[in-house]
Amino acid sequence: MSVVYINDSFVAEEKAALFVNDLAIQRGYGIFDFFKTINGKFIFIDDHLDRFFYSASRMHLPVGKSREELKNVLHGLSVKNNIPDSGIKITLTGGYSEDGYSLKKPNLIITQKALSFSHNDFSKGLKLVTYEHQRQLPDVKTIDYLMAIWLKPFIAEKGADDVLYHKSGIVTECPRSNIFIVTNDDRIITPADNILKGVTRKHLIEVAKGKFVVEEKNVSIEDIVKAKEVFITSTTKQVLPVLQVDDHVIGNGKTGAITLWLKEQLSQLIGVAQ
Amino acid sequence: MSVVYINDSFVAEEKAALFVNDLAIQRGYGIFDFFKTINGKFIFIDDHLDRFFYSASRMHLPVGKSREELKNVLHGLSVKNNIPDSGIKITLTGGYSEDGYSLKKPNLIITQKALSFSHNDFSKGLKLVTYEHQRQLPDVKTIDYLMAIWLKPFIAEKGADDVLYHKSGIVTECPRSNIFIVTNDDRIITPADNILKGVTRKHLIEVAKGKFVVEEKNVSIEDIVKAKEVFITSTTKQVLPVLQVDDHVIGNGKTGAITLWLKEQLSQLIGVAQ
Repeated sequence: MSVVYINDSFVAEEKAALFVNDLAIQRGYGIFDFFKTINGKFIFIDDHLDRFFYSASRMHLPVGKSREELKNVLHGLSVKNNIPDSGIKITLTGGYSEDGYSLKKPNLIITQKALSFSHNDFSKGLKLVTYEHQRQLPDVKTIDYLMAIWLKPFIAEKGADDVLYHKSGIVTECPRSNIFIVTNDDRIITPADNILKGVTRKHLIEVAKGKFVVEEKNVSIEDIVKAKEVFITSTTKQVLPVLQVDDHVIGNGKTGAITLWLKEQLSQLIGVAQ
Repeated sequence: MSVVYINDSFVAEEKAALFVNDLAIQRGYGIFDFFKTINGKFIFIDDHLDRFFYSASRMHLPVGKSREELKNVLHGLSVKNNIPDSGIKITLTGGYSEDGYSLKKPNLIITQKALSFSHNDFSKGLKLVTYEHQRQLPDVKTIDYLMAIWLKPFIAEKGADDVLYHKSGIVTECPRSNIFIVTNDDRIITPADNILKGVTRKHLIEVAKGKFVVEEKNVSIEDIVKAKEVFITSTTKQVLPVLQVDDHVIGNGKTGAITLWLKEQLSQLIGVAQ
């Protein structure tokens, strides 16, 4: 059992609870961010805090703590838990609302859980299935994963690993990761609009720009089908090759050289030998 | 303080809580229904339970209780609370999920709160402001009110009472109510697609059919602007006249005769003199 930080207190996980009039439970209203620690080191912490404060501001939710205060809490939590390789999730909800509809003082919850970075997915590659859906307030990391969870039986039925959202054939993102394609002339393209801009996405673009032309612009399902390589990025998954989208095998059906190179560059950046 | 039913127990409201790994808090995943009691009588209870079981089924959430068992719990709760005029909310969440992404045994929460049925809104009438948005899984009464809560500052800034969603100029619903128009030749029209079909909406249509032509079909913003009368329906609001939508005054800017007649018919049906 790990320790959870909730509204200025550290409590045992089995006591970390919110009253049922919280607006996350009542109205699905809240935001979060999620980052990993490797050997106790917080990875890209400032990027995640930037986005956390941005999400909070966009959703009219005062964080109630400065960035430095929040960092102190995060360090305090990680010392208490002592889980070197972990995922830390910071959640901010709409608060305890008497009328179940008005924002109140937000509830702040920080959890930390062990995270293992398996290589299995990387060697296997992923199959994605497309589905027409546009996340609401896509630039904000809200807790709204209603469609993602709802689609799990559909994803399983299609024998896929995850869903790739699109709008009228223009792809946006997977529920928890960003998508990239490598064209036949070795340009790297990733959607720019109507998505959540991932922290791993940002660093991958920076790394890629050292060697490739990188474009942030619309990507259609047709572009995906014709791509030489396709991969996704996320904090948890880092870089994972996509080898099939719907019925289309990507490239030669094997992890591409550029995907592999980018994954290695990113691993070096994070300071982890993989 | 009222009594809350949560997972087979009656507890004091100040102890009704969910652990933070519940999927409502983690992923905004849950459904609910809401009905009112008047003089201790459950209003349209079977309609609400029909929809509750439908929502649960659509969201892959086993209720874990039969309709009769649920009714027994509802009666037990209302005896304990003894609040004759109340709103009862039944919520079912995605459950305590270790990985924060997989559905588990749902958590069932039933709350009861005093509800007063004020006449003020009816005499005043409402102003709505339109906003382009389509609720995801619109036929399901999910807890997803992210956009509704997020839009509250926008609604206030426009001096409106509530928002009316539309998609490419075709209106659907307000966040917590259905919309109707009365045309200049006294037909009553209400949207049929991409909406949550309200229980009050259903009964209003039945009542109206006794005297008017009622059509369930697309309603455009243009139809609204040209309408003789506009009103909304909901469990809490019953029937409320809409006197302005964006900058357009509806009809002569006063509550219409047909709106008033329908409200009276519905009050009689519910068995409340108003």
